[in-house]
Amino acid sequence: MEALDYHAEERSKAEFDVEELKIVWAGSRHAYEVSDRIARLVASDPVFRKDNRTMLSRKDLFKDTLKKAAYAWKRIIELRLSEEEASRLRFFVDQPAFTDLHWGMFVPAIKGQGTEEQQQRWLPMAYKMQIIGCYAQTELGHGSNVQGLETTATFDPQTDEFVIHSPTLTSSKWWPGGLGKASTHAVVYARLITDGQDHGVHGFIVQLRSLDDHLPLPGITVGDIGMKFGSGAYNSMDNGVLRFDHVRIPRDQMLMRVSQVTREGKYMHSDVPRQLVYGTMVYVRQQIVLDASCALSRAVCIATRYSAVRRQFGSQNGGPETQVINYKTQQSRLFPLLASAYAFRFVGEWLKWLYTDVTQRLQANDFSTLSEAHACTAGLKSLTTTATADAIEECRKLCGGHGYLSSSGLPELFAVYVPACTYEGDNIVLLLQVARFLMKTVAQLGSEKKPVGTTAYMGRAEYLMQCHCGVQRAEDWLKPSVIVEAFEARAARMSVACAKSLSKFSNPEEGFAELSADLVEAAVAHCQLIVVSKFIEKLQQDISGKGVKRQLEILCNVYGLSILHKHLGDFISTGCITPKQGALANEQLRLLYSQVRPNAIALVDAFNYTDHYLSSVLGRYDGNVYAKLYEEAWKDPLNDTVVPDGYHEYIRPILKQQLRTARL
Amino acid sequence: MEALDYHAEERSKAEFDVEELKIVWAGSRHAYEVSDRIARLVASDPVFRKDNRTMLSRKDLFKDTLKKAAYAWKRIIELRLSEEEASRLRFFVDQPAFTDLHWGMFVPAIKGQGTEEQQQRWLPMAYKMQIIGCYAQTELGHGSNVQGLETTATFDPQTDEFVIHSPTLTSSKWWPGGLGKASTHAVVYARLITDGQDHGVHGFIVQLRSLDDHLPLPGITVGDIGMKFGSGAYNSMDNGVLRFDHVRIPRDQMLMRVSQVTREGKYMHSDVPRQLVYGTMVYVRQQIVLDASCALSRAVCIATRYSAVRRQFGSQNGGPETQVINYKTQQSRLFPLLASAYAFRFVGEWLKWLYTDVTQRLQANDFSTLSEAHACTAGLKSLTTTATADAIEECRKLCGGHGYLSSSGLPELFAVYVPACTYEGDNIVLLLQVARFLMKTVAQLGSEKKPVGTTAYMGRAEYLMQCHCGVQRAEDWLKPSVIVEAFEARAARMSVACAKSLSKFSNPEEGFAELSADLVEAAVAHCQLIVVSKFIEKLQQDISGKGVKRQLEILCNVYGLSILHKHLGDFISTGCITPKQGALANEQLRLLYSQVRPNAIALVDAFNYTDHYLSSVLGRYDGNVYAKLYEEAWKDPLNDTVVPDGYHEYIRPILKQQLRTARL
Repeated sequence: MEALDYHAEERSKAEFDVEELKIVWAGSRHAYEVSDRIARLVASDPVFRKDNRTMLSRKDLFKDTLKKAAYAWKRIIELRLSEEEASRLRFFVDQPAFTDLHWGMFVPAIKGQGTEEQQQRWLPMAYKMQIIGCYAQTELGHGSNVQGLETTATFDPQTDEFVIHSPTLTSSKWWPGGLGKASTHAVVYARLITDGQDHGVHGFIVQLRSLDDHLPLPGITVGDIGMKFGSGAYNSMDNGVLRFDHVRIPRDQMLMRVSQVTREGKYMHSDVPRQLVYGTMVYVRQQIVLDASCALSRAVCIATRYSAVRRQFGSQNGGPETQVINYKTQQSRLFPLLASAYAFRFVGEWLKWLYTDVTQRLQANDFSTLSEAHACTAGLKSLTTTATADAIEECRKLCGGHGYLSSSGLPELFAVYVPACTYEGDNIVLLLQVARFLMKTVAQLGSEKKPVGTTAYMGRAEYLMQCHCGVQRAEDWLKPSVIVEAFEARAARMSVACAKSLSKFSNPEEGFAELSADLVEAAVAHCQLIVVSKFIEKLQQDISGKGVKRQLEILCNVYGLSILHKHLGDFISTGCITPKQGALANEQLRLLYSQVRPNAIALVDAFNYTDHYLSSVLGRYDGNVYAKLYEEAWKDPLNDTVVPDGYHEYIRPILKQQLRTARL
Repeated sequence: MEALDYHAEERSKAEFDVEELKIVWAGSRHAYEVSDRIARLVASDPVFRKDNRTMLSRKDLFKDTLKKAAYAWKRIIELRLSEEEASRLRFFVDQPAFTDLHWGMFVPAIKGQGTEEQQQRWLPMAYKMQIIGCYAQTELGHGSNVQGLETTATFDPQTDEFVIHSPTLTSSKWWPGGLGKASTHAVVYARLITDGQDHGVHGFIVQLRSLDDHLPLPGITVGDIGMKFGSGAYNSMDNGVLRFDHVRIPRDQMLMRVSQVTREGKYMHSDVPRQLVYGTMVYVRQQIVLDASCALSRAVCIATRYSAVRRQFGSQNGGPETQVINYKTQQSRLFPLLASAYAFRFVGEWLKWLYTDVTQRLQANDFSTLSEAHACTAGLKSLTTTATADAIEECRKLCGGHGYLSSSGLPELFAVYVPACTYEGDNIVLLLQVARFLMKTVAQLGSEKKPVGTTAYMGRAEYLMQCHCGVQRAEDWLKPSVIVEAFEARAARMSVACAKSLSKFSNPEEGFAELSADLVEAAVAHCQLIVVSKFIEKLQQDISGKGVKRQLEILCNVYGLSILHKHLGDFISTGCITPKQGALANEQLRLLYSQVRPNAIALVDAFNYTDHYLSSVLGRYDGNVYAKLYEEAWKDPLNDTVVPDGYHEYIRPILKQQLRTARL
């Protein structure tokens, strides 16, 4: 049988080598090969099917998740997968599970905050999954403000134990993934109290459930916090609630790498620098940025392929209607998102480098770049997750009515993705941290402390405050240096303007609070500059493959100019560009869309997603959308019977005018 | 027992008479009283509880919906409710059901498109629900482009019948609500073919299911199209798929008010003007705008109340943390949405008047305002539904992590609301219609045809193209005339700029396609002007109640200035205001937020929503959020057992290292 490919003509139009771009997207030939192999492995295994996921009840969904997690672990052992391969496997299984927290938070917490001895004791068990752990930080009443946590860990010198306790309702642990039903252990964050003194929040390893029968240990109340956004989606995760009633743990279960409590109950610090914690944060957020590029590219892939299948209006003489991807309104919404997917990918890659750099410096006791790296990752986490959440929903809308069907894959993708805007730092709180750092940087201009890394441009603030954009014709906007300077000038001017406004307040904290909405805008401008710059830097590297670099240059321009168009008010009101130059940028953008158009399908093929991973009828590789939508519909449980359950009790009495006597 | 009210202090701070604002919001004392009474009736009836809805399987949810629909109808009959009361009851039951389509589309279609005779035959049955009808227009391959529908209705003069047929897969009817399982009849849109000639799309009444046993009639394949976005939400609706295999219906089941087919098969038009159809469109879209204000106000009510309960950071000396509603970042996101809720309410009310006006004119054969009214309603439908969908999600994010829980009510509200952006005209397609009308209006400037109604300002285009905003101090932005002129100038200049760009194309249609993204922006500017103007006009009326008018003036300014800030690029690049004036607007906006703050809770109390209707733990009237969140969690089916189903098969083998031999 010949393979069906409704997109064959689209694919033949591509002006570049899609196989080469696949490697650029993956990061390396090795990464590409591992991903490709593991993706196929998962896709071909019936245990991992997920097309019926949104129809499962909560209980069935959770059981299905337990099964997949166990089976995935079994396959990892059987196939002797490397750590990299195992992590790709979990990624492609694509169903949030307690194992995400075990590997992603519990193990790293012990590694990062445990002493050598603690690591030797706990990690082997964790690596073999003889214990399953989660990360119990947030409480019912406390999220962003970690220092406000209420759970207490009071040292009892009599027994050499800590007493873990939940003193109030709002101190109930709330949200930790894997806590509700699966975990046997948790790293619990609690206020350390010795001899009546509160030393702030520290981490403790606490066993929650018996390893014999999985029942909660005495003094522990634990359960699931209930349904979350969407069907399927994050409901596969047992986010949990946890209360302690004076639960005792041995003293050596406090994570003691940085601070210790001695046998006598004395609180001490080791010589390990506290800043190490920030290294972990950089790592986690770097991962979140890469995840954003995955979720975004997935949504864009679906919307792009479907936009080439869907036709509406424009039929001439009874011929086929126009593919909706040919409409400029569709292009102007879709192509900037396609460009963003690549932009986030490259900035995520760069963050990987940044993490390595910061780690090496920390090991050499060099903290000079730490606050800049911290601000930069906080900002990029915020920027990319907000943009991705919005983009998934925009892609759904770009698919018209059919995007609203679960079988489009987009509703579930949205529901499962949006918590990224809140976890690991609420996006607005993070931008305020960036803003605080920017204000500090501005305040130090002219001093000995020179701005470094992503704020180095601030060192040229004097120039940037008065420079003029030289664009005279639309094509002038294609020069990377022109775009970067406009973004630098905008970011610098917005920061300096905020700093000026702040200086009018006698109380700086009051000023910061009053101007916080403006400060957030300045932080966004700074972060967008980083993304644009890193995209441009990427293009200064060697990129092989016929036409590949050219396509990326086009996308880079689309990214920069679409952001510029969207935030035109910033650029013009700060005098960075003139209204006329803004109009030219918009004109250039339209021309760029025409250049993206013939390559659009190939540009999303380069993500190399299997139909299993995409899990979208609209995004199918072969474009056979309508027949499959029709086929999928009949699988809904409502179609089990032609006459619906409830007809006799509730429909017939209406039709037959027998409602008065009906028992309802 | 004393009633708990965590918001009591907030309520006592209000500077206006909340009872009076309730009446303004409802539209009249009568409307308020009906709404209030029916809302309580529904809230107090256990059959209508919906707090467990997101946990139901699709089948159970659908059965629950059938039950509620039957019970609601029973109560309507028992209590002899008026049409207004019955419609409020369905509104407060707040669960999409086949009855929405029966009353909202099937009955109006027969009323609007049926002859007197047809109405006399079909309406009495429909009114008594002896038949249940839906509205079968869209097809698998055809949504926005109604003229592209493929279903055929071929006249057979031999038998005096139409043969309804689905010639292709893409011609399958797809999406009609109530079609999948409940409806016995449908108004089906199909291409009328007589004697081999295609007369375009017409409506036909077709019986789908037997009135005896509810089985589909011969030649009819019908079912549900499957799960949609979210849990609960629109999954209570049986959106359907329908295929016809040469189904025959009598000739008199073609809806013949406007066009007829005679016994001989001759196709004719009556003297009823075709434009009547537009009257119905104005009606439906007016309803959608009012629905937008309901959904938006509901989300805002939840987010506002929770923002006053939630505290984070800012604790001093161990005192309570700061209410998040006190943060300017929270206010700058939340208060514009609060203002939008009121703005959409008032523009919706005005549309009601417009509908009456248009209807009266149509009856007098006056079509002069029709195209303006059509453009205006199309634009407002698009503007308000897009803004509302975005706002619900923003409100969810404003509730932090807990907004992600189903028990917050926001995920389901979002999922159930978003289709409004697509149905009854895709929002981008509608804006292009508005743009087309605007371009026509610009082209006719200077001619005899003067712009009317919401485009009357275009008549002053010459002035608006060169006027200068006079704002010198922040408080100058409080003058309604200043705001309106800035919005008028922006809208006029954007339209004229588009018209100029268009004139450079030799083929106007090509130009329109090429510039469509800019045209959409011009259309948005025009629609925002309408909303601002109608809010201001509302405030020129008598509004009684202590402090009520003052609060609405503040909200009106918040609406205008927040839109101005968001679209600053438009205003500055067209030279309507200077960057300095833009900064002053922003400064004024901050001051306005401080004025809204003490009244925020009372301003959302004025929507008069019951806790039942809100269906949100975070939005509870009494603010008792944490205890109830905790309580709700335990109701999740996953908490039925302490040790989860699946432990023995999938968790224990992991912990005990017995996976290799486990059967998975």
